[in-house]
Amino acid sequence: MINGEQYLERIKSYSREIYVAGKRVDYDHPNIQPVLRAFAFTYDLALERGYSVHSDLVGKEVNVLNAYYSSPEELMKRYDYQRELSMRLATCNYRCTGADAINAFAAVLKGEERERFLRLLREIQENDYACTSALTDPKGDRSKRPKEQKEMYVRVVEERDDGIIVEGAKIHQSGAFAADINFFLPGQTFKEGEEEFAIAFALKPDDEGVKYILQNTGVQAKQREGGEFEYGNPFGDRTTCTVVLDRVFVPWERVFVYRDLKAVRNLLMTFANSHRCVGAACKAGFIDSMTGAASLMIKANGLEKVSALTSRLGEMSAVAESAYAIAIGSAVKGESVNGTWLPNGLMANAGKIAGVDGFIKAMRHLAEIAGGIPGTAPSEFDLKSEEVGEYVERFLRGSENFTAEERMRIIKFIEFWLMSSHYLGALHGGGSVSAAIIFLQYMSDIKSKEEAVRKTINL
Amino acid sequence: MINGEQYLERIKSYSREIYVAGKRVDYDHPNIQPVLRAFAFTYDLALERGYSVHSDLVGKEVNVLNAYYSSPEELMKRYDYQRELSMRLATCNYRCTGADAINAFAAVLKGEERERFLRLLREIQENDYACTSALTDPKGDRSKRPKEQKEMYVRVVEERDDGIIVEGAKIHQSGAFAADINFFLPGQTFKEGEEEFAIAFALKPDDEGVKYILQNTGVQAKQREGGEFEYGNPFGDRTTCTVVLDRVFVPWERVFVYRDLKAVRNLLMTFANSHRCVGAACKAGFIDSMTGAASLMIKANGLEKVSALTSRLGEMSAVAESAYAIAIGSAVKGESVNGTWLPNGLMANAGKIAGVDGFIKAMRHLAEIAGGIPGTAPSEFDLKSEEVGEYVERFLRGSENFTAEERMRIIKFIEFWLMSSHYLGALHGGGSVSAAIIFLQYMSDIKSKEEAVRKTINL
Amino acid sequence: MINGEQYLERIKSYSREIYVAGKRVDYDHPNIQPVLRAFAFTYDLALERGYSVHSDLVGKEVNVLNAYYSSPEELMKRYDYQRELSMRLATCNYRCTGADAINAFAAVLKGEERERFLRLLREIQENDYACTSALTDPKGDRSKRPKEQKEMYVRVVEERDDGIIVEGAKIHQSGAFAADINFFLPGQTFKEGEEEFAIAFALKPDDEGVKYILQNTGVQAKQREGGEFEYGNPFGDRTTCTVVLDRVFVPWERVFVYRDLKAVRNLLMTFANSHRCVGAACKAGFIDSMTGAASLMIKANGLEKVSALTSRLGEMSAVAESAYAIAIGSAVKGESVNGTWLPNGLMANAGKIAGVDGFIKAMRHLAEIAGGIPGTAPSEFDLKSEEVGEYVERFLRGSENFTAEERMRIIKFIEFWLMSSHYLGALHGGGSVSAAIIFLQYMSDIKSKEEAVRKTINL
Amino acid sequence: MINGEQYLERIKSYSREIYVAGKRVDYDHPNIQPVLRAFAFTYDLALERGYSVHSDLVGKEVNVLNAYYSSPEELMKRYDYQRELSMRLATCNYRCTGADAINAFAAVLKGEERERFLRLLREIQENDYACTSALTDPKGDRSKRPKEQKEMYVRVVEERDDGIIVEGAKIHQSGAFAADINFFLPGQTFKEGEEEFAIAFALKPDDEGVKYILQNTGVQAKQREGGEFEYGNPFGDRTTCTVVLDRVFVPWERVFVYRDLKAVRNLLMTFANSHRCVGAACKAGFIDSMTGAASLMIKANGLEKVSALTSRLGEMSAVAESAYAIAIGSAVKGESVNGTWLPNGLMANAGKIAGVDGFIKAMRHLAEIAGGIPGTAPSEFDLKSEEVGEYVERFLRGSENFTAEERMRIIKFIEFWLMSSHYLGALHGGGSVSAAIIFLQYMSDIKSKEEAVRKTINL
Repeated sequence: MINGEQYLERIKSYSREIYVAGKRVDYDHPNIQPVLRAFAFTYDLALERGYSVHSDLVGKEVNVLNAYYSSPEELMKRYDYQRELSMRLATCNYRCTGADAINAFAAVLKGEERERFLRLLREIQENDYACTSALTDPKGDRSKRPKEQKEMYVRVVEERDDGIIVEGAKIHQSGAFAADINFFLPGQTFKEGEEEFAIAFALKPDDEGVKYILQNTGVQAKQREGGEFEYGNPFGDRTTCTVVLDRVFVPWERVFVYRDLKAVRNLLMTFANSHRCVGAACKAGFIDSMTGAASLMIKANGLEKVSALTSRLGEMSAVAESAYAIAIGSAVKGESVNGTWLPNGLMANAGKIAGVDGFIKAMRHLAEIAGGIPGTAPSEFDLKSEEVGEYVERFLRGSENFTAEERMRIIKFIEFWLMSSHYLGALHGGGSVSAAIIFLQYMSDIKSKEEAVRKTINL
Repeated sequence: MINGEQYLERIKSYSREIYVAGKRVDYDHPNIQPVLRAFAFTYDLALERGYSVHSDLVGKEVNVLNAYYSSPEELMKRYDYQRELSMRLATCNYRCTGADAINAFAAVLKGEERERFLRLLREIQENDYACTSALTDPKGDRSKRPKEQKEMYVRVVEERDDGIIVEGAKIHQSGAFAADINFFLPGQTFKEGEEEFAIAFALKPDDEGVKYILQNTGVQAKQREGGEFEYGNPFGDRTTCTVVLDRVFVPWERVFVYRDLKAVRNLLMTFANSHRCVGAACKAGFIDSMTGAASLMIKANGLEKVSALTSRLGEMSAVAESAYAIAIGSAVKGESVNGTWLPNGLMANAGKIAGVDGFIKAMRHLAEIAGGIPGTAPSEFDLKSEEVGEYVERFLRGSENFTAEERMRIIKFIEFWLMSSHYLGALHGGGSVSAAIIFLQYMSDIKSKEEAVRKTINL
Repeated sequence: MINGEQYLERIKSYSREIYVAGKRVDYDHPNIQPVLRAFAFTYDLALERGYSVHSDLVGKEVNVLNAYYSSPEELMKRYDYQRELSMRLATCNYRCTGADAINAFAAVLKGEERERFLRLLREIQENDYACTSALTDPKGDRSKRPKEQKEMYVRVVEERDDGIIVEGAKIHQSGAFAADINFFLPGQTFKEGEEEFAIAFALKPDDEGVKYILQNTGVQAKQREGGEFEYGNPFGDRTTCTVVLDRVFVPWERVFVYRDLKAVRNLLMTFANSHRCVGAACKAGFIDSMTGAASLMIKANGLEKVSALTSRLGEMSAVAESAYAIAIGSAVKGESVNGTWLPNGLMANAGKIAGVDGFIKAMRHLAEIAGGIPGTAPSEFDLKSEEVGEYVERFLRGSENFTAEERMRIIKFIEFWLMSSHYLGALHGGGSVSAAIIFLQYMSDIKSKEEAVRKTINL
Repeated sequence: MINGEQYLERIKSYSREIYVAGKRVDYDHPNIQPVLRAFAFTYDLALERGYSVHSDLVGKEVNVLNAYYSSPEELMKRYDYQRELSMRLATCNYRCTGADAINAFAAVLKGEERERFLRLLREIQENDYACTSALTDPKGDRSKRPKEQKEMYVRVVEERDDGIIVEGAKIHQSGAFAADINFFLPGQTFKEGEEEFAIAFALKPDDEGVKYILQNTGVQAKQREGGEFEYGNPFGDRTTCTVVLDRVFVPWERVFVYRDLKAVRNLLMTFANSHRCVGAACKAGFIDSMTGAASLMIKANGLEKVSALTSRLGEMSAVAESAYAIAIGSAVKGESVNGTWLPNGLMANAGKIAGVDGFIKAMRHLAEIAGGIPGTAPSEFDLKSEEVGEYVERFLRGSENFTAEERMRIIKFIEFWLMSSHYLGALHGGGSVSAAIIFLQYMSDIKSKEEAVRKTINL
């Protein structure tokens, strides 16, 4: 297992086509640096805190995010890792979709495709690669089928002896530009006649024709302006990209699903459950971070004795512990499929919903505690300005236990939580709440609940 | 392990002072019969579904509710049992406070008191007794300390060589009148000088001076009027009582805490966490029952194709699975104290809150699905009446797959869910939501969350 | 304008077929007496507080509930009357559907039908009759049209020279059995070919073939057992009935809509908006009552200084004032149709939703404040019993400012709020929340909101 | 009444000290231009839609925001103006605090102070000035009184014959730098001995020693980078500033409250109620804008037929209509104080809460409808880039009825709604929700609600 520094060296050796705000950029760009820091942190934290599991494939310990799990304990270890990463980064760790893909492939693939996948996984584990995956196609007009808007969805456009040519794009993709391996999975199921879309594969940094166009939120605009803490979180906003595949060649060795409608269905459900469940642990960590920030703000304002505020910390803890506990429960009540331990599907989807609701509640508590200042505060540049620095210094002070700058750091961090893309990320990451409800509606054993009632009331 | 029939025989052999609506009654009373059925069902279900754990004390399998747990697995078994009981009974199983007391005593007691307790526990296990516990004292004027209103709280009023005389009352007590063993624990912590209240003990059916005055809700009034299904649930409303102790003698052998402020504190927190956590599993089961009823109502109305209604079943499943998963997570992330495996305190309290919120959401979904009819329907007596039976038969019919009587049974069961004491029971059982929030506020490791933020923002 | 006593005398002179719990009963029945008290109270309060408007039809002041309104001021007067009635009765006043029908007829009817209606209205005003209306048909299998289950819906089955014969039933009807005039309106719109259901008319106490079968909730079972305050509210549970029409003759003079699909559509929307809007004022009054009860409970428990509880009274006031203010806003922003001042439709439907959500929030606040005791308290009969009265007296006492009986009266009143049919009544009265949302979706001027955005972003 | 162009000319003639991101800037700065556009729009809309009232002071029509109101009708006109402004600007109109101050002064001031105020008001009306007010002092350590941290709060530091010297700062101030008149009011009540803070006055553009330091949110960073629609809303983020008063001289003619604790109390409550009530109308307009955006997004995605999404538009309308109706109700049920028509205090505070809750609900509906794309979309610069523009064009297309650019404009506008400072502004504008609840708790007539219950239950 490598450390963050080693990851950074490797990643900077790649020459990818990455675009920010209309221009091609390299890995030193201020919108990319924070993402690299986040990736690097995942490596360092794994070493520091032992977030590894034993892999029979390579006969040694590997990062939790680069393994498929053989037991509830391993799966729980992932959730602990995730919660701590989310608390410490206060943003995306980017590698969780990689782990979801690895586990989905391990649970679903059979035969030759499984062998191919395991060979790649061995390589991943040997090199301690960072992996991500891309799922959502740009759907264009949602009232139409993929084929009616063929240029959009990722699909095979040519079949060769040595591999396939793929085209299309994926949106909402988090951090692929800073990963070693990019998995591509279908973002929905397909019907007969739509086999060209029913593919899953992996790309490597050298593959040609791949372009990454990054999102551009306000936090990212701030990142471009620099400052030490003005953009709130040194790990930056959750940075997604649109990944464009312009006639990209994929060798058969990295094609894991090919024109297989059923495999897509299984893969998608397995990935979704895996991702929704880890999302609950992730939201727990985010809420932990918000809780810490809220507590610091209370202290920076001298409000430790106002129970109407401090009790909100208890409410924030409640939603964090709930989301985390659901992930744990889901791990314990999971099942082994093809040697891979998967979380309980019902609980995973319930966890998605609890995570979203908890995040939104925590956000409101944080905002109520913080007051309006995260929206109205002057900037770090004002604090450090010759002309008005002294005023900002004087009027931004709170409790004497904090300097104005310290209080401003807290304020800017809270601004980050309240005005970044995380609200949307919480809602839609792993699919919408509605999608989770539909899963629960169809997968819950409502029949047995009906039966129980029938027995109770002698029906 | 005995069966329900054996329990019933034993319980009917006791001659307790039980009062309903101002009159002394016996075990055949229509407000008590449903409670006995619920107790009996706990016995039958344990046998049918194997809800037992091995006890070293007696060297055999004992009912899950009569044991303290030595592992997460045993604790999870309890939650499964609880969820199923709640789903099947659609009301209280009455024995869960007994199990909470057993686990709290096992975790907290030491020395001679522990020995006494284990001797009683052995007897309980040998006989497969039904146990309950009583905690809440009538607090009178809440602005005063217990001593300022001495006649209210349960307390020791005389110390003898062979035991103590206790006096006072406990309220909100569920089902003690139908149990073999009644534990009494303090309902709050006490200060120095208040040692007379710092006691815990067990009573048996033959103890003199004990009076049980039952609650009297609308469902219970309906129970007194009979009918086959008019009161909705054959297991009746959750039936609590006020237990009056009029100079009751307790031999030392059954006194487990005596004038010990610290033991009370530990006992109370252990009991509360245990009870709040099982409460989450309980609410999951209640929501299961409501979900089954909602699904039957949709079918009885011919509304299976209205997705705005059926999707609510998915939302109900979400809150049920959340509450249950939190209990499971709590068991896994628990800890062993004095050889007793206790649930994770933070998660237990988070589960309490999730259970309440989930129950209230599910109640609303059920009500939206059911329409107004559970409040406005004619009675079973009208359906069976010569004068208007034919009209009720005609106008209460829904889908042809259900007779009018079948639909009415469903309606009356839903009426039960919406107008029984369960809403209050969900809110206040195991203490209020506010109490859970305060626990979380003080027991959460907010310091480490602050530290995480400090590291992230370089504070 | 008559007083309550005069109403009672008149109503008791009618000999209607009323059924309770399978038996025919008269006006002295304990399930009917509270309803009569509520009706009577509407008369007395109108006199005491001047809830009247001038009617040109009869050239004098008439009860607000027996008039159609010519101005926002008159409509607001109705909302004030409604809020006060709901606060004072803590249950249905039964006459509000009468007022809604009167206003819907006045706004919609034209020509001869309007003349017929005005003649009846004159009679109503002259005699100060109590009026109600019935809308909801028992819909049987909801996947079928009315005609496919012809025996259910109210419909014309024979046309005569002097009038029509109607048959069918209405459910969810509040208090018709204790009113002088029963209006019947369609509960939904109909398609071509379904004209037989497109009728509206009025019945009088002497009409033959009408049967009233009353609901039977737990509160009503309690009412049958008597006691002074055991059933909580002297005005009883909201008492609805199923009204069966067994070949009832209606003279043309009282037929207002006959086989007219369009009139039905207008009538229904006008009635619904009118009823949903007054429902908001009604919920405000209900919440007022719950707020008063909560405040009394706080005092009876000696908890006046616990701000976590008293602040809930502020939250309850917030939802009450919101619901009421929406009704007022709706009156002011209403419109005159055919000389009748109708509330603003969008606001009326928004008020319905705010009323429901507010009611449910207030209910939870009340339950949190009250603690578990409204579900677990002994009965009035226990308090007055020779055997255990002294214990109940002692252990139910709270603050010294309240006797045990006083505290019990408060407790039983809160039990009423938490376990009566009002939760369902709030949700479904005037139609479900979903129906209100659909109205808002289609009637809101979303086009102009889109246009505003287009202008803002230059689209 | 002037138009927007005339306002712009006048405002640009002022040479104020304004700081953005650490540098002094002028009115052409990209963070100020959008604010000027918003101010200008208020002028144009008033002319276009007749948002004026007659002023006896100047004997002609004046802008609704520059008048105190003499009737409910005038107050309602203000709410209509506010709602339309909020819908059209999708951000702050900046002048509403000016109107609140004018009405608070008119209702509270007496004698010479009133005369001074009226003289200024006449000047305001004659010139159609834009007015704002500043209230919140930087409170430093909230556990200390203002005097213990004397340098923070705005206070009088010297009294002269011709006026006073004031010092301190105000935070959270919206738009003062772009207004003609800046009112200063105390942000809290004070105790005896704290008279130095008990002052209220007005500043003009020429006054020396005033510095405006602007907030710096992500939207503002985007504004600095330009683009045609990349920052979402041409009117920009709600732009507040910290106003520093560095020994500013105020002539007596513009001092309206001087060392008067009671006047401060009245002024503050009057201002707060006025501002909270208009805030409800404001939130209605914001929700209108979000609803329009949501509807456009549904269309741009081809999702018009998905009722699970379109029904959310109905829910959004419900909360908008509720908030607006409460403002209207508040106007109607208001009262005349000193010739000024003030909104009903209870309803105003209830409206504040309904506005916040409605805003947060609407935000979630908007986010659920929009999907993740407002967080993950490429930028306008990417769309227009030579290198990747063609890809963005292709993959961002939705329905054929919208170009990629049109869809992107909608997306960026939604990004604005979800990641601007409006969430915080909604929560804290006019004070926190907790403050509104406390007001309701103390000002509601809970006594009369208790009395009503006492009568109902014969207590």
